[in-house]
Amino acid sequence: MHSRIRTSFDRQSMMKTLGAELADITHGHVVITAPILPTSTQQQGFGHAGLTFSIGDSAAGYSALTTMPDDQEVLTTEMKINLIAPAQGDYLRATGKVIKAGKRLVIVTAEVEAILGDHATTIAILQGTMVPVTLRS
Amino acid sequence: MHSRIRTSFDRQSMMKTLGAELADITHGHVVITAPILPTSTQQQGFGHAGLTFSIGDSAAGYSALTTMPDDQEVLTTEMKINLIAPAQGDYLRATGKVIKAGKRLVIVTAEVEAILGDHATTIAILQGTMVPVTLRS
Amino acid sequence: MHSRIRTSFDRQSMMKTLGAELADITHGHVVITAPILPTSTQQQGFGHAGLTFSIGDSAAGYSALTTMPDDQEVLTTEMKINLIAPAQGDYLRATGKVIKAGKRLVIVTAEVEAILGDHATTIAILQGTMVPVTLRS
Amino acid sequence: MHSRIRTSFDRQSMMKTLGAELADITHGHVVITAPILPTSTQQQGFGHAGLTFSIGDSAAGYSALTTMPDDQEVLTTEMKINLIAPAQGDYLRATGKVIKAGKRLVIVTAEVEAILGDHATTIAILQGTMVPVTLRS
Repeated sequence: MHSRIRTSFDRQSMMKTLGAELADITHGHVVITAPILPTSTQQQGFGHAGLTFSIGDSAAGYSALTTMPDDQEVLTTEMKINLIAPAQGDYLRATGKVIKAGKRLVIVTAEVEAILGDHATTIAILQGTMVPVTLRS
Repeated sequence: MHSRIRTSFDRQSMMKTLGAELADITHGHVVITAPILPTSTQQQGFGHAGLTFSIGDSAAGYSALTTMPDDQEVLTTEMKINLIAPAQGDYLRATGKVIKAGKRLVIVTAEVEAILGDHATTIAILQGTMVPVTLRS
Repeated sequence: MHSRIRTSFDRQSMMKTLGAELADITHGHVVITAPILPTSTQQQGFGHAGLTFSIGDSAAGYSALTTMPDDQEVLTTEMKINLIAPAQGDYLRATGKVIKAGKRLVIVTAEVEAILGDHATTIAILQGTMVPVTLRS
Repeated sequence: MHSRIRTSFDRQSMMKTLGAELADITHGHVVITAPILPTSTQQQGFGHAGLTFSIGDSAAGYSALTTMPDDQEVLTTEMKINLIAPAQGDYLRATGKVIKAGKRLVIVTAEVEAILGDHATTIAILQGTMVPVTLRS
C-alpha cells in the first residue's frame, strides 16, 4: 500500500512545487506536510488558499486510495473547503480521512493545521468525494 | 480598480509559481489564465486540482474585489469545486463572477475552462463566499 | 420524459408536504415552485433553509433525470447551497440545470428565487452531484 | 442557554412539520432527532434529502447559537451536505458541532445518523457557515 501511494505522490509534480511530503500513511488515513514557501503565498504573505486546498485535497485523495484495490487510482470529483485561520507558522499539516468507502464513490474529509513550535491551529476543513478509476495497463 | 487588482495579484507569489496571468477585469467579473506547467500536474500528467482550484478561487476573489471600496481586501472563507473534466489542453481560463455583493459577505462563482485550439471545455465550476477585510495602513 | 418525472415527483411525499409543484420540464432543465406555507418557516417567519434546499435539490435532481435512460432513477450524492436573501414573498421558484451529464455522475446547479408580484429575487444558489441508479423491476 | 434555543426551535414550524425534537443541548453541541414520517419521503420511500438537510442544518445552527451572546440569532449562509446512505430506520439523529466560533462567522459541522434498533448508521455529513445577526427588540 505504502509504495503505491508514494509512487503516485512522487508523480504529482504539484506536490514537489509546493514542497509537500507524505508524512504518514495508514488504512483510511494519510498525512501530508508542506512548508509555506515564498513561492506559495497570497497577497498578504500568508499561504495561498490554493496551497491549503492542494495538500488537503491530496491527503483526502490518498486516504481514499488506501482503501482501494491495487489496479485503481482515485480522482477528486468535488471538494468543499472552509478556511478558518490564516496559513502562517512553521509549516502546514494536512490529515485526510475516509468517511465512507463505496465502490463508486468514496466520501472523505481533511483537516489542515498550521504548526508553530509545538502548537497546532486548524486553518481549514475539507469535505468531498473521490471517484475510483481503473488504471489502464 | 484595475491597478488595485493588478497590485494585489502581483503580490500573490502563488500565481507567479503557477504562471497565471490576469486576462480581463470588469466590474464583478475577472478572468485569469494559466498554462499547465510541468510543475503543476497530478499523477497522470493532467493539471492538478490545486491548479484549477487556485485560479478559479483567485478569479472569484478578484471579481469580488472589483465591487469593494478601495480600503478593503478580500479573503476566501469557503469554496466548493466540482471537477468535471481533466485539466488538459493549451492552457486554462478561469472566469470569476459576483452573484451577490453584500457588506459582510460576497457570494461568487467561477468557471474554469481548458482551451485547446479554438475549443473551450468546462473542467470545473466553483461556488463560494468572500469576506471583505479592511486594510491596515 | 414528462410523465416519468411527474410520476417520480408525485411519489415524493415531501414535495406535497411543502406544497411544491412541477412548473416546467425541458431537457436538462426543470422548474419547481412552492408557497411559503405557515408550516415551512424558520424562527423569524421566513421560509426555512430546508424548504429552499428541498425544492432546489429536487429541481436539480429532476433536471438530471431528463438526461437519463428510462430505466434509471437519480439520487443526490452531494449538494452545496449558498443562501443569499431571506425566503419571503408570494412563493418560491427553483430552477435546476444540468452542467455535465456523465454516465456515472451528473453535475447540476440550481437557483432559487423568491417571487413578489412581478419581481424575482435570487435567494439561493446550489451546486451538486447526482448519481444515476438503475431501477429494479 | 437552553431556554433560548428551545424558544427559537419551537418557532421553527418546519421542525414541527418534520416531527423533529431537540434531544440534547450542550455548549457548541446540539442533537436533534426526527422520525421518517410518511409525509417526509422521496420517490423510493426513504427519507427525503430535504429532511436530512433540515435537521442537520438546524442542529449545526443551534450548536452555533450556544456560543453566542443572548441578543443574537444565527442564520445559515452556506451548507454542504454529502449523502452517504439511504435515510431509513426507526428515526434520524442529527448532531451539530462548532468548529470555530468567530465574531463574524461560525464554522460548523453536523452528522446525521439513521437509528435502527441499537445500531446507528451515518447517512450524511454537513459542513457550513453560520452568521450571527443581532435581534431587533
